[in-house]
Amino acid sequence: MSDVGVTVKKNEDFSEWYTEVILKSGLADYAPIKGCMIIREDAIAMWERIQEVLNKKIKATGHRNVYFPMFIPEGFLKKEAEHFAGFTPEVAWVTQGGDTPLEEKLAVRPTSETIIYATFSKWIRSWRDLPLKINQWCNIVRWETKATKLFLRTREFLWQEGHTAHATKEEAEKEVMYALGEYRDIIENYLAIPVIVGVKSDSEKFAGADYTTALEAMMPDGKALQMGTSHNLGQHFAKVFDIKFIGEDEKDHMVWQTSWGLTTRTIGALVMIHGDDKGLVLPPKIAPVHVVIVPIPYKGADPAAIAAKAKEVADKLTQKGLSVILDDRGEYTPGWKFHQWELKGVPIRIEIGPRDLQQQQVVMVRRDTKEKSFVKETELLETAEKLLEDIQRNLFVKAKQNLEEKTTSVKTYDEFKQIVAGKGGFVKAAWCGGADCEAKIKEETGATIRVIPFEREEPKTDCLICGKKARDIAYFARSY
Amino acid sequence: MSDVGVTVKKNEDFSEWYTEVILKSGLADYAPIKGCMIIREDAIAMWERIQEVLNKKIKATGHRNVYFPMFIPEGFLKKEAEHFAGFTPEVAWVTQGGDTPLEEKLAVRPTSETIIYATFSKWIRSWRDLPLKINQWCNIVRWETKATKLFLRTREFLWQEGHTAHATKEEAEKEVMYALGEYRDIIENYLAIPVIVGVKSDSEKFAGADYTTALEAMMPDGKALQMGTSHNLGQHFAKVFDIKFIGEDEKDHMVWQTSWGLTTRTIGALVMIHGDDKGLVLPPKIAPVHVVIVPIPYKGADPAAIAAKAKEVADKLTQKGLSVILDDRGEYTPGWKFHQWELKGVPIRIEIGPRDLQQQQVVMVRRDTKEKSFVKETELLETAEKLLEDIQRNLFVKAKQNLEEKTTSVKTYDEFKQIVAGKGGFVKAAWCGGADCEAKIKEETGATIRVIPFEREEPKTDCLICGKKARDIAYFARSY
Repeated sequence: MSDVGVTVKKNEDFSEWYTEVILKSGLADYAPIKGCMIIREDAIAMWERIQEVLNKKIKATGHRNVYFPMFIPEGFLKKEAEHFAGFTPEVAWVTQGGDTPLEEKLAVRPTSETIIYATFSKWIRSWRDLPLKINQWCNIVRWETKATKLFLRTREFLWQEGHTAHATKEEAEKEVMYALGEYRDIIENYLAIPVIVGVKSDSEKFAGADYTTALEAMMPDGKALQMGTSHNLGQHFAKVFDIKFIGEDEKDHMVWQTSWGLTTRTIGALVMIHGDDKGLVLPPKIAPVHVVIVPIPYKGADPAAIAAKAKEVADKLTQKGLSVILDDRGEYTPGWKFHQWELKGVPIRIEIGPRDLQQQQVVMVRRDTKEKSFVKETELLETAEKLLEDIQRNLFVKAKQNLEEKTTSVKTYDEFKQIVAGKGGFVKAAWCGGADCEAKIKEETGATIRVIPFEREEPKTDCLICGKKARDIAYFARSY
Repeated sequence: MSDVGVTVKKNEDFSEWYTEVILKSGLADYAPIKGCMIIREDAIAMWERIQEVLNKKIKATGHRNVYFPMFIPEGFLKKEAEHFAGFTPEVAWVTQGGDTPLEEKLAVRPTSETIIYATFSKWIRSWRDLPLKINQWCNIVRWETKATKLFLRTREFLWQEGHTAHATKEEAEKEVMYALGEYRDIIENYLAIPVIVGVKSDSEKFAGADYTTALEAMMPDGKALQMGTSHNLGQHFAKVFDIKFIGEDEKDHMVWQTSWGLTTRTIGALVMIHGDDKGLVLPPKIAPVHVVIVPIPYKGADPAAIAAKAKEVADKLTQKGLSVILDDRGEYTPGWKFHQWELKGVPIRIEIGPRDLQQQQVVMVRRDTKEKSFVKETELLETAEKLLEDIQRNLFVKAKQNLEEKTTSVKTYDEFKQIVAGKGGFVKAAWCGGADCEAKIKEETGATIRVIPFEREEPKTDCLICGKKARDIAYFARSY
């Protein structure tokens, strides 16, 4: 833990502020190896919480966790041409085991479709084996050459990847939407981050997919961040890995497949969206600690009585299922502790001093608004729980406002360019559906289609670029 | 799932039996890449259970989970000479990122002391930062050249590694024993596997440790299996990575360190020890499924009434916190289901047929003894819970008997050789403490010192080899 607070203001140098908040709050650290990061205690605690929530959901719907090897022979990656072309530029290769050069170099998994589906072809024989719905939590490596950005762009990160095989196309389509729905619930209701959900354009889809659906969030600097993806793989991989089953009709059929992933970058989004000039602000439903209690032993007061009361309050809250830290360290001042726990984003701080003792009350400070209130001991539990709910809701509402303020509908390409170069954010524009128009926009403005939302709006103008009839209203943005 | 049962008998070809049970029960599969395995659904469920239990323990004692990069620059590994020499022969090396050769090759972590301690030297400044107690759950790679053995010898496996730094030697010593104690609880009380705990000889200790403590179990074929280790690292790594702190005395001190690990090989031990000719036998405290219910719809019976009763029983048990599968699949016969769930080691099978319905009872079959009993519906919950406790206890008792039967005290080297070549198991023998005598035994018999137990026995004879005064009674064995 650092002794000083955040020195950069969020609205002055967003990028610097982001890095400083992460390092000083102890969420992560740069690793002593280029391009990599150390995911520290509080970030792992949040990731474990995400794991717990998602595991519960997907297990209840018949998915099971497994673990596949992280090494993928080059030949496997090559089997699906589009997939290989998409991933090979950023693969880390193992070429040597002990002193011996390997006969075939091995990719450290950039994603696991190929090795998993090579095995699906062995596991799946009959309609009785379907649907096959598995998931794994693991590390992933993509050899980034651009500058490292903690949580958002590192050579190794953590994720889960779901992989399913189904007897029918319809079932696979349903699964794609199922996974996306569970992601949305976690991101909006736990991380308190509103998202736009929809389909990626062909040029932005997963290499090897029929189509990719995604959840996109808007950061305070006007750049979009992809929060998760769910792919309909159609029968691309089934064909190259020969994943067939004998149907109830006793004939051979190809399976239909999906894959979907959620990564530790979601934690980066959390920092960007909710954090402030004092540090992290964590949504209660994901925070490792809900309440920190700081005893205030004024000179001349009875420190033992204050300590006893602080302990009593801590026990009460813990028994209610809250995660509580009683910070009774003698080597730090209350003021230092306030700063420290603000930096770490703990939703509620409780202070207990001699006067509070007398009046049978505590001081309660909420992290998001810094609002301070005196709470009678008899109302402690109720107030704390209500406050946590309020904070959770308030963070989402504020983020939703940010998303709305940063979403602009445009009619002309001039307007489009002006917005992208200026306030940024999502720019909603009519698009013909052509890859050329999309490429031109990307080249000239840096903005890409983030999604074509499921909540479809009928285009009222023609394509921004070519002037032909528009097919969709797409959400464009520059992105992380 | 396979359609046929185990074809090899445990006491006829132990090694074949082991592999067949694992593959057919669906615990694991060979990966389509040499030396690697796929850890399948039920094995991951058991590993998750181990994670849950150990996480709860270590978090309650102030340890926190983190995640460090898996790539370790060669230079880091080299810093501690003994450590490098110990691990480098089995390191997988990444030498290329995308198309570009790396300037320094990177080890895929065989263990993480070096990269973690390079960072400890940055995190630790003052006595206030101590103790630092972290842990990570991750994959590990050791480039085995010997034949693959599922769970026991694969190039990649899963583990947790705890890493701690302390202000005093005493505190580090206590931590070593703390971790060992938690492992023992999990292995004996959850996995139902009795262990011998003690210290490794110098030649068998962790490369870079002051000393290594370990838990050793005895397999039915007379070979020992190391179940977990906890190392006292002394100040070896502190010195090479310069991990210093300013004490309360305002002077510079070196930290004292420990590391400890438990791997997925424990699941292999579970299979070996408890399994039988019908397949897996899982201890209830670790089993992913406690009870399977198979409705028996005899011809002429009322299938709807049986199905309703089966559902009712399943709900009752689930509400009690048990993990229950109601196998009401129409496409399989009851007999096929019995075999299948026996293969998978589910502790209790409940059968419900028309006569049971009439008599308001169920048939309950325990997996370990195959004992069958009729249980009144009113006594269902109580009996099931009692049975699970009985099975858990019985498995431990049987394994303990195996351990005792396979432990032999010897006085002479001739006796020693005879036992090792014959029935195998642990051979307790007097040893002078010299590496030469130990090496001679290993060379001539293949047996190594597994541990010198903490429960010390005074040697009553002289060293088996050199005839000098014995220092210890050591447990020797051939091992996995």
